[in-house]
Amino acid sequence: MITIDEHRARILHAAGRLPAVESALTDARGLVLAADVVSRWPTPLFDNSAMDGYAVRAADAVAGATLRIVADVAAGSDEDPMLGEGDAARIMTGAAIPSDVDAVVPLENTDLGTAIRAVAPEQITVLVAPEPGAHIRRLGEDAPAGSLAVVAGTPLGPWQLSAIASSGFEQVAVHPAPRVAIISTGSELVAPAGTPRRGQIPESNSVLLSTAVRDAGAVVTSIRIVSDDPAALRRVLDDVDADLVILSGGASVGAFDVVKAVLGAEHAVRFDQVAMQPGRPQGFGVLDSGLIAFCLPGNPVSVAASFEMFVRPALRQMAGFAAVDRPRVVRAAGSAWASPKGRVQILPAVFDDQTVRPATRGGSGSHMVTSLAAATAFAIVPAETARVQEGDAVTVLVLS
Amino acid sequence: MITIDEHRARILHAAGRLPAVESALTDARGLVLAADVVSRWPTPLFDNSAMDGYAVRAADAVAGATLRIVADVAAGSDEDPMLGEGDAARIMTGAAIPSDVDAVVPLENTDLGTAIRAVAPEQITVLVAPEPGAHIRRLGEDAPAGSLAVVAGTPLGPWQLSAIASSGFEQVAVHPAPRVAIISTGSELVAPAGTPRRGQIPESNSVLLSTAVRDAGAVVTSIRIVSDDPAALRRVLDDVDADLVILSGGASVGAFDVVKAVLGAEHAVRFDQVAMQPGRPQGFGVLDSGLIAFCLPGNPVSVAASFEMFVRPALRQMAGFAAVDRPRVVRAAGSAWASPKGRVQILPAVFDDQTVRPATRGGSGSHMVTSLAAATAFAIVPAETARVQEGDAVTVLVLS
Repeated sequence: MITIDEHRARILHAAGRLPAVESALTDARGLVLAADVVSRWPTPLFDNSAMDGYAVRAADAVAGATLRIVADVAAGSDEDPMLGEGDAARIMTGAAIPSDVDAVVPLENTDLGTAIRAVAPEQITVLVAPEPGAHIRRLGEDAPAGSLAVVAGTPLGPWQLSAIASSGFEQVAVHPAPRVAIISTGSELVAPAGTPRRGQIPESNSVLLSTAVRDAGAVVTSIRIVSDDPAALRRVLDDVDADLVILSGGASVGAFDVVKAVLGAEHAVRFDQVAMQPGRPQGFGVLDSGLIAFCLPGNPVSVAASFEMFVRPALRQMAGFAAVDRPRVVRAAGSAWASPKGRVQILPAVFDDQTVRPATRGGSGSHMVTSLAAATAFAIVPAETARVQEGDAVTVLVLS
Repeated sequence: MITIDEHRARILHAAGRLPAVESALTDARGLVLAADVVSRWPTPLFDNSAMDGYAVRAADAVAGATLRIVADVAAGSDEDPMLGEGDAARIMTGAAIPSDVDAVVPLENTDLGTAIRAVAPEQITVLVAPEPGAHIRRLGEDAPAGSLAVVAGTPLGPWQLSAIASSGFEQVAVHPAPRVAIISTGSELVAPAGTPRRGQIPESNSVLLSTAVRDAGAVVTSIRIVSDDPAALRRVLDDVDADLVILSGGASVGAFDVVKAVLGAEHAVRFDQVAMQPGRPQGFGVLDSGLIAFCLPGNPVSVAASFEMFVRPALRQMAGFAAVDRPRVVRAAGSAWASPKGRVQILPAVFDDQTVRPATRGGSGSHMVTSLAAATAFAIVPAETARVQEGDAVTVLVLS
């Protein structure tokens, strides 16, 4: 038996960061930036108005002064109208400041409610005099051209992508989303909407894994269900087009464990007993093709626990995230429960600000599919603990 | 001027939950369940083995007893082999327990390491006698048929979708993801990779909004950039096929504000000054077609703040989420900064376990695009505060 940390270390050593690729900004959501983005432009790009109002010479625009409106400057206009003494230009927020002026009088500091009507006024009276430079954003005052806009390693959300667009780019270097194939194995599996006969069960791991993979920011390239037939499994494996494959089922010590027979005997996948419950039998290796292969046990709670402990960290590392693990918090046990001594318990749980408790009354059996539906976390109980007592401090791995 | 809460109340009153639709499980990731899911089957579906080992009559399987192996029961097999006195059946985890037996002896409690070789053994010796019923999961012991598997209102993640599949369904009733159209307006906008001339800036709001919309679990149906031309805006609006449209730019009090002219005058969109900074000018209404319309100010920081305060809660409510808001925490100000008295400040910020501070040294100007790239949160400062002092308790809206 090996520890969770020993198995993780082997996996994280093998699952390297994927090489950078160029991506359109609109396809880069959730990916990690692979190279610093340096702005092509100063911010702002040109002297512009911070307000809707009138561009004026500050020296003319004393309180009570009436100014002639000789020009309109709309946002996007490339005009630079000439303004003499006593002149003003109507100007929009963001529009370029005419070279002849040095202040903006906001609309509300003039007498001209009329300016918002369809008919443009011909003059305005200043009610509050502007300071020189008032309401003008100067070229480069936020950042000069060549400034670092977004640093390599940053996960790209709406704000970062907006900053990259503002910096003058439509493409960006990112670590791509890992491409993942999913294979559910087992002759007992039937489509969920079907009617199982004796010995059969609805196949549920493919939707569990495909959803978890997408939630982790990776892409699912194929989902296949195969029976316990070595030839069928070999054919499905040959068809995989992915960076990583996740198999569930058939990884145990049983005589019919086809995944173990094929991937263990014919590929460099090592099968271990890991000191955790559920999820003890684990296979992991890198095939000759470079494909990273996880062979997980077959029942859904084991699949969920194995995914969180091993597969998700690998996917996050491949995608370039510095933080590969979920956040963990500590809560007091809201009830007592048994834990398997010698193995780390990974228990579907619910938690609030104070306490954590099992998601269902039924205990920790790895077959309890329904316990997953109600859970929002895993409670992680150390191997040396045989029983969690009410009030004990418990580590909670937070899932949402 | 109206308050943020007044504007939100008007929006949340109008943005009702979308009617339920049927979805394939694989398309339901992140959606909210619209009706309770009740299992078609008991869990487990049939008496089955919890271990790889031998199905035996407990009365025969005393320590030291040698049993004849008369059958193999693989997972998925519908066989129910007859077992007489002194007989055992090799059985896999999850396989149906033969009717004639009442216990399972795990492999490791027998002498038969040979059982994992290719050649099947003909007999085993029991090393540890099983209790009657040992390692058998009984039909329905986890939950009877008709049990509530997942309750209406639950967001569907991997675990919930797995439980629904196990309950016997491939389709599920969900509130659909809201369908959103995005329109960036402004004659000053150019494609980011282009070279702006005087008065022009790179268009960045469409990638900000489309990414934020997707992060909120909604679907983007179209992205359009239009100049400040009423006819062009009308044409783009006519083409919208969505539940909700987000316009940015042209919502202010300026004379050229085309969005305000078209949506305010020709549609039932109301334009308000909201007591927040940035994001004061806000338009919201429901068009005759039923389309929900948000008209946000044009600069990216205002767009980001407006999206978080108003658009995201509407999208989450439409999608059926009970919790429409981001989590908020309280942190001590790590530095002092100014806040506009009379308006709630919504400041791009960074925070850690103890403190929160502005994301950039440059202050709170709504034009500071670069402040967004570094931010992980918004600091929310009440309207009555003119200055945040170092150490003050500050509300932090957490964004990731």
